[in-house]
Amino acid sequence: MKYCAQCGKPVEHFTPAGDNRPRYVCSHCQTIHYQNPKIVAGCLPAYKELILLCRRAIEPRKGFWTLPAGFMELGETTLQAAQRETWEEALATVEQLELYTIFNLPHISQVYMIFRAQLEEPNFGPGDESHEVQLFHETDIPWQQLAFPTIEKTLRHYFVDRQSGNFPVRVEDITQPIKK
Amino acid sequence: MKYCAQCGKPVEHFTPAGDNRPRYVCSHCQTIHYQNPKIVAGCLPAYKELILLCRRAIEPRKGFWTLPAGFMELGETTLQAAQRETWEEALATVEQLELYTIFNLPHISQVYMIFRAQLEEPNFGPGDESHEVQLFHETDIPWQQLAFPTIEKTLRHYFVDRQSGNFPVRVEDITQPIKK
Repeated sequence: MKYCAQCGKPVEHFTPAGDNRPRYVCSHCQTIHYQNPKIVAGCLPAYKELILLCRRAIEPRKGFWTLPAGFMELGETTLQAAQRETWEEALATVEQLELYTIFNLPHISQVYMIFRAQLEEPNFGPGDESHEVQLFHETDIPWQQLAFPTIEKTLRHYFVDRQSGNFPVRVEDITQPIKK
Repeated sequence: MKYCAQCGKPVEHFTPAGDNRPRYVCSHCQTIHYQNPKIVAGCLPAYKELILLCRRAIEPRKGFWTLPAGFMELGETTLQAAQRETWEEALATVEQLELYTIFNLPHISQVYMIFRAQLEEPNFGPGDESHEVQLFHETDIPWQQLAFPTIEKTLRHYFVDRQSGNFPVRVEDITQPIKK
């Protein structure tokens, strides 16, 4: 951030009086520009015993497989964001969403929230951000070609928990940068 | 947002090519300024059978009682944010944090994440944003003077769940503005 979004003058970077960390501050109009982490919401869509994955058509990790997920937008709930991303990336309509995994990624200031979800019908296809979308048996998951650690960890939990039918909400920290 | 934070020129507001909603866009340097919901992280601190509440010294809802909570900062985990806010508002150190309630507030683009937490010792006091901080028995909770619906709902769940000792993670939507 170099300029004030309110008045267009250059911002400075210092700790405001009464605060405890540096902020971007406009000395002209006094606006303090707070910056905060973003939520990435997504789904683990299941159809019978199969799981829906998308092969990414965009960077980062273009060509790798992911669960449909993306940045939550203003005015949404986390569940609505997860449903919307599943539609945009996989052209799939999901129901019965249940929050399943939460990942803190402090090195990139993101929080992932992934919901288990059901595909009522096997209707899907590649949205603008996907090369292809496909249902996978557990034994066919492309473990070496998954896009992000959040996706791999969610899938690994899922196949273990599915054996018991008990899916507790899991909260984990991922503190390493994404491997390239 | 009126000016581009990157180059200081006025921004426009329209739906960029390939996108599906209006954004603030700089026609000079082409930066798209995305805006996203914020996470509010907090604690429900327990000491034996007592619960710690803070009376707010700042707006909104100045003078009303709340659980310690506030906006998550860059570089934090949700748990770290909840611990920090508990220190800042109640000068209390909490341990054994367990995620408990999640509230979507789409009308103000916030997601609350509140952790159950333990005070090992009854050491606390008012931080800069609190008038007073106090331990309450269930029978003494000031239900009519709670600051936010998220706080009331978390406390009501807690006292019910405490009877069974089972505290499932609860995800709820609050779609009404805060009552004044």
